[in-house]
Amino acid sequence: MKALSPLGNLRVVLSRPRHPGNIGAAARAMKTMGVHRLDLVKPQRYPDAEAEALASGAGDILAGAQVHEKLASALEGCVLVAGFTSRPRDLSHPPRALRDAAMELVAAAREGGVALVFGNETTGLSNAELSRCQRMVMIPASDDYASLNLAAAVQVACYEMAVAASAHSLAPARSRKRATAEDVEALHAHIEQAMLASGFLRPAHPGRLMQRLRRLAARVELEKEEVAILRGMLASFERPRGEKG
Amino acid sequence: MKALSPLGNLRVVLSRPRHPGNIGAAARAMKTMGVHRLDLVKPQRYPDAEAEALASGAGDILAGAQVHEKLASALEGCVLVAGFTSRPRDLSHPPRALRDAAMELVAAAREGGVALVFGNETTGLSNAELSRCQRMVMIPASDDYASLNLAAAVQVACYEMAVAASAHSLAPARSRKRATAEDVEALHAHIEQAMLASGFLRPAHPGRLMQRLRRLAARVELEKEEVAILRGMLASFERPRGEKG
Repeated sequence: MKALSPLGNLRVVLSRPRHPGNIGAAARAMKTMGVHRLDLVKPQRYPDAEAEALASGAGDILAGAQVHEKLASALEGCVLVAGFTSRPRDLSHPPRALRDAAMELVAAAREGGVALVFGNETTGLSNAELSRCQRMVMIPASDDYASLNLAAAVQVACYEMAVAASAHSLAPARSRKRATAEDVEALHAHIEQAMLASGFLRPAHPGRLMQRLRRLAARVELEKEEVAILRGMLASFERPRGEKG
Repeated sequence: MKALSPLGNLRVVLSRPRHPGNIGAAARAMKTMGVHRLDLVKPQRYPDAEAEALASGAGDILAGAQVHEKLASALEGCVLVAGFTSRPRDLSHPPRALRDAAMELVAAAREGGVALVFGNETTGLSNAELSRCQRMVMIPASDDYASLNLAAAVQVACYEMAVAASAHSLAPARSRKRATAEDVEALHAHIEQAMLASGFLRPAHPGRLMQRLRRLAARVELEKEEVAILRGMLASFERPRGEKG
C-alpha cells in the first residue's frame, strides 16, 4: 500500500451523513486500509468534536476532507463511480456483490479517480444520487438484518479494495483514455436537450427515459473519444436539414 | 445465511473490552453477517446504555450475550479457536491473513463451535489469551496505521466468514432480455442512415466512424428495450422540426 498503489486514486464520498461520529469512524476505517481521500457532501454536523474523537489516529484524513454542496463536485475527475446500497433498487443497475466488483474498481483506479459513494445513514442514496453512479455495489448481509453501520460499511469496502489492490496483477493498462464523470454528464445533458428539441422526450416526464440511458452509458465505460463522437453526432442531428457540417 | 449455515456455530468472543459502545457495535456487526453468538470475558462496563444504543437492531444479540470470568469458559465446546491480532507476536503461531484463514474456519464450523477471539482495545490479546488460540489471524492493514476499531474488526471478520459460508455470489441474474444480433444490426443501419442524412457521416468514408460505434455497442451488450429506445430517439431526430411524435 505504497505511493503507487491504486488505493491512492480511491476516494470515499459520504453523502449527507447525519452523525459526525460516523464521519470520524469512517476516516479511521479508511486509513487502516490505506485509503486517504474523504469527500463529504452536505454533512449534517461537521466539523465536530465527536468526528475527531472517533477518527482516533486518522485526524489527518479528517483534516484533509473536502466538503461539497453537491455530489457532482465530489465526483470531479472520477473515471468510475460506485454507489453502495443495501438493497436492489429500481431504475438502477443490478447491484453486484462487493467482492465481485472489487477487482474492477481497483483496475479502474489505476487509470483515474474512483469514488465509493455512501448515502445517508437512514435513507441511503437518493435516486438522484444513484443516477450518478455507474456501478451499484452491495455488501452481502443477512436477510434478517442488513443494516451495517455507515463506518462499518466503509471499513468492509476499503478492506476489500486493499485486498484486491494487493492481489491485483500488473495487467497492462487500457490504452484509450476513459471519459471522466464530467464528460459523461455533459453527454447526458446534450442527449436530453436534443431529445427535448426533437419531441422524443416529454418535458413533463423526463425521468425514466433518461434513467435508462444513464444506466446504458454507465455499463459501457465510455472513452473520451467516444463521447466526442456521440456529441458530434447529436450536434449534426440538431442542425436544421440542409446545413451540412 | 439460514439456520443450517456454519455461521450458526460461530461465536465472537470479546476479551476484556473497555468501551461498552464497542460491545454494542460488535453485536450489530455480527448480526448483519448472520453471526449470533456473543461471549464477553470480563467486560469493563456491561451492561450499559451505550452498548444498547450502538447495538441498534441487534439488541437480541446483546441480550443473549454470555458474560464470563475467564476466557476458558467462553471457549467451551469449541473445535477451533482463532485469535485476532494486528501484528505478529512472539510465542504464537505465525498469523495468517483473514481471507486465507476464512475457509478453514468455516469448514471447522460445520463440525462444531468456532471462536473468533478479540482482545482488549488497547493491549490486544495477552500472552495467556494467545496461548488458548489454535490459530492467529490478522486483518491485513496499512503499515502506516493498522489500528482498526474493535467493532470494525469484528465487522470485517464476520463479513469474511459470511462470504466464505455462502457458496455463490449474490449477484442477481439479468432479468432483461438481450438484444439479438439482428436487432443490433438494424440499429447500426438506422444510425448510419441518420448520420448520412444529417451530414455527420460522409458517404465516401463511412468506415472508421461506424467501426467505432460498432465497437461501442458490442461492449455494452444491449438489451432489446434499449435498442427500441435508441431507435425511437433516432426516428425523432430524423423527423423535420416542428412535427412532434
